[in-house]
Amino acid sequence: MQSSIQELIQANRSRAFFFKYNENPKAYAEDLAAQGLLAFQQRLNTNYNLPAEASCSQWVGEEVSPYLQTGLGIHYPQLSVDALIQQAQTAQTSWQATSIDQRFEILNQSLEIVGQRFFELAYATMHTTGQSFMMSFQASGPHACDRALEVMATAYEQLTYYPNQVNWVKPMGKFDLSLHKTYSPIPKGIGLVIGCSTFPTWNTVPGLYANLMTGNVCIVKPHPKAIYPIAIFIEALQTAMINAGVNPHSIQLAADTIEAPLSKTLAEHPAVQLIDYTGGNAFGDYVESLHKTCFTEKAGINSILLDSCKNIDAVAQNIAFAVSLYSGQMCTAPQNIYIAKQGVQTEEGLVSVTDVQQKIVMAIKGLMDNPKAAAPTLGAIQNDATISRIQQELQLHADKVLTYDTNVVNAEFESARIQTPSVIACSVEDKNIYMKECFGPMIYLVQTESFEQSLSVVQASAQSHGAITCSAYTTDAAKTTAIQVAMNAVFTPVSFNFIAAAFVNQHAAFSDLHVSGGNPAGNATFTNTDFINKRYIWIGNRYML
Amino acid sequence: MQSSIQELIQANRSRAFFFKYNENPKAYAEDLAAQGLLAFQQRLNTNYNLPAEASCSQWVGEEVSPYLQTGLGIHYPQLSVDALIQQAQTAQTSWQATSIDQRFEILNQSLEIVGQRFFELAYATMHTTGQSFMMSFQASGPHACDRALEVMATAYEQLTYYPNQVNWVKPMGKFDLSLHKTYSPIPKGIGLVIGCSTFPTWNTVPGLYANLMTGNVCIVKPHPKAIYPIAIFIEALQTAMINAGVNPHSIQLAADTIEAPLSKTLAEHPAVQLIDYTGGNAFGDYVESLHKTCFTEKAGINSILLDSCKNIDAVAQNIAFAVSLYSGQMCTAPQNIYIAKQGVQTEEGLVSVTDVQQKIVMAIKGLMDNPKAAAPTLGAIQNDATISRIQQELQLHADKVLTYDTNVVNAEFESARIQTPSVIACSVEDKNIYMKECFGPMIYLVQTESFEQSLSVVQASAQSHGAITCSAYTTDAAKTTAIQVAMNAVFTPVSFNFIAAAFVNQHAAFSDLHVSGGNPAGNATFTNTDFINKRYIWIGNRYML
Repeated sequence: MQSSIQELIQANRSRAFFFKYNENPKAYAEDLAAQGLLAFQQRLNTNYNLPAEASCSQWVGEEVSPYLQTGLGIHYPQLSVDALIQQAQTAQTSWQATSIDQRFEILNQSLEIVGQRFFELAYATMHTTGQSFMMSFQASGPHACDRALEVMATAYEQLTYYPNQVNWVKPMGKFDLSLHKTYSPIPKGIGLVIGCSTFPTWNTVPGLYANLMTGNVCIVKPHPKAIYPIAIFIEALQTAMINAGVNPHSIQLAADTIEAPLSKTLAEHPAVQLIDYTGGNAFGDYVESLHKTCFTEKAGINSILLDSCKNIDAVAQNIAFAVSLYSGQMCTAPQNIYIAKQGVQTEEGLVSVTDVQQKIVMAIKGLMDNPKAAAPTLGAIQNDATISRIQQELQLHADKVLTYDTNVVNAEFESARIQTPSVIACSVEDKNIYMKECFGPMIYLVQTESFEQSLSVVQASAQSHGAITCSAYTTDAAKTTAIQVAMNAVFTPVSFNFIAAAFVNQHAAFSDLHVSGGNPAGNATFTNTDFINKRYIWIGNRYML
Repeated sequence: MQSSIQELIQANRSRAFFFKYNENPKAYAEDLAAQGLLAFQQRLNTNYNLPAEASCSQWVGEEVSPYLQTGLGIHYPQLSVDALIQQAQTAQTSWQATSIDQRFEILNQSLEIVGQRFFELAYATMHTTGQSFMMSFQASGPHACDRALEVMATAYEQLTYYPNQVNWVKPMGKFDLSLHKTYSPIPKGIGLVIGCSTFPTWNTVPGLYANLMTGNVCIVKPHPKAIYPIAIFIEALQTAMINAGVNPHSIQLAADTIEAPLSKTLAEHPAVQLIDYTGGNAFGDYVESLHKTCFTEKAGINSILLDSCKNIDAVAQNIAFAVSLYSGQMCTAPQNIYIAKQGVQTEEGLVSVTDVQQKIVMAIKGLMDNPKAAAPTLGAIQNDATISRIQQELQLHADKVLTYDTNVVNAEFESARIQTPSVIACSVEDKNIYMKECFGPMIYLVQTESFEQSLSVVQASAQSHGAITCSAYTTDAAKTTAIQVAMNAVFTPVSFNFIAAAFVNQHAAFSDLHVSGGNPAGNATFTNTDFINKRYIWIGNRYML
């Protein structure tokens, strides 16, 4: 185990590591796929029993499949906040006493258990988030497990940063002063992880595994519409804890409902010291205002700055896919696309703004008209509210909508909640239109006066509204530098000239830092050392020898 | 240079490293001592010219020697806040562009320059803080430089945590997806370091060197009564920057006066992103409320829990020295000493509370009556207000004062502002008396009902009022564990059974973590990785190959 941890740490720090868990469903034993589907089907309309909550008497569950638009009928054990906290406090003492190696082994075992259930996890994710099967499989399974391993590697390295103990000898002239010193990372206490409805494991797993690795017991409060996927991780963790003879209440599920949410009661409980949160800005700002140790990933406005490129069609196709992928419901999805009025310089000459806009719209249409690609790219819309918000927006700015004719049908799920990407073309003056987050499949093509103005607006947007990522297309070296300097100065990463299979939306474990922690889109990043170190306090005791 | 940095990093992480800069004045060339005294004498009643502020027209200075009780007459260049910020912003671009190695070399050179002026620095510290010559020499010179090196080593390691760049290749089946990725620690911006009057370099240097190493330009706002010592560091840094061809405004002095303080104007300036602060709690809480990245070291109440020991006289002597050292003006000085009413078990039998109290008082008297030891141990009182506060306290609780007859004279400085330690004996019920910080040479001997009550009160005190350190005497293994667990749980380090040359007040660079960052005495610690990492944001850009 020791050597494999060190290999993992080196792989993590190298940043060139690709993955440990294979993201290709075909790489897994064939029977796993069938077992996974069966497990999912058998789970519907039942109680989800967690190993540590066998005696629970209250059950809640209101998940609705965005593909079927019917309820899943799965119910989860619901404990009172007092019971959750009390069980967490009891577990804290024993979990804190486990060694760092033991924690690593337990967490690693949980991932192995989840690894056997990647297909069930994929269906669970599809039918709560609306992601396509492929994204559900990759993001909730292998990618989330890789994010967990990334956190575990960073934590292992940080927790062993100082030696456990040293004998310190200070020469005092006629004699030596000898002291025995110990260094311990003391966990801060109970960690609360509040999940979101679109990426219920990928976004939750890093904080969850970071808490557990650093000796903090953890309560996960998932979105009430997306409990099933993370319940699989919690079950696996509790199983691994029981196998190791450790109190399984070191990880607990706090299930709630839209009607009676528990997040604030849990977050404000004095025993809760750490909060990880993914979701909207209003609640994220509230979490940050609690003066606890918190890690937030909120919303931002992601921009594309389109200055020049080799091939405008390749760029338009890349953008079309990026804005369509999971119907723009990724926190990394681009929303505003800035083009200077002079047009876009390409290897085949200057392309006018109108032509660029038309190429982007037609690339979207091309994707939507491809029956093999459209439905798997779009997935389904997680929440009805997303569709009504976009409809309102389209009515309000009807004169600026660039329409295209298409009709996407999901052959497998006729009831799937589908919304193809909408495109609004506007001027840089129309800040009231584009300078806000419109969650879902909606993009704004913003015409500016110049490259310099585009960059200035993109920078200001990231600084004041936050941005998780930024995409830029330019063939000019000086502009490349200008974009990089300006955007990095507002702590926003840039992806340059992405075409073909590279998409700005995708952040890889072991290589990409997700959320910078430096702008309003969030105060923390997966998984630099701060993501780990803030969860405990180094204490050095001294003993006279 | 590269290999010596790596050696330093290893030494720092080993935590057993003793020092790089020798703390013994006798280890330095003899002429340096005479040169230092001369330099100090020639500095009095002059303008302190800084290399980067040759053209300054406004000068301020109001330092008063606690030994002479006369003004030093030294004046420092004073720039407006606007001018300081503007110069800092100009310098930020070039400082940020320096490499990590170049920063290390410049900072290292500044320490070498200061190392040639340790004796002048010692006199500057004596005659602003009231520290003895020896403490002035050690704390302001070698120990502060070691703290700087400790920060530089941690920063160097953290800033190179990720590679600068990687080529990332993801196998996609029929082809590979190749991306070039860069990782850069982007500095947050202008750092403000607010110093204190008692340890003007030791407490200021870590934040200052951490800012500079992480690419953030820095403005130091020292206490108006203790500018001279840190001006020597600033001069050395500006000289090293000029030598390297770098804008010397990367480090600036913001001198102010008691009458017209600049701290709040600087702290609230939108361009200031980072604040390091050492001082009282009210201003520290204000700094923390500004929602900037801040590192505070505030005040706490440090306790001694006296349960049992081998030799009570050795313990009494150790306590007497610890409370007398620099007249209790160290932030690590113990204030409250808890003894259960049953008395203290020793190898020579049980010693009653009254006898223990008497032994502590007589150990203090013994130290004060020793003409060679008394004045060098006490130093002088930095601020008149400390003496009046203690006099008020003594009047208020006159019936509880344990008096002893002594008369300390400083043979070298007849006008020295001296106050010997005062002792008040009270009951655990008298929380209004002892459960507050009384800065200076004042201790409270608190009688409790039991060991358990002592521990419970010491823990609650650290949790609600903060504690930088805690001292405990016990020969019982179970009690040792109980103390360690209870105090570490409120993020307070414990020093066990210190006698002879080991004093709870002293925190060594490369070995002891000063301030835990986990209780109200401060939100940061020298110098774990957070002390470095919070000063910049990792940004990863991606380039299509």
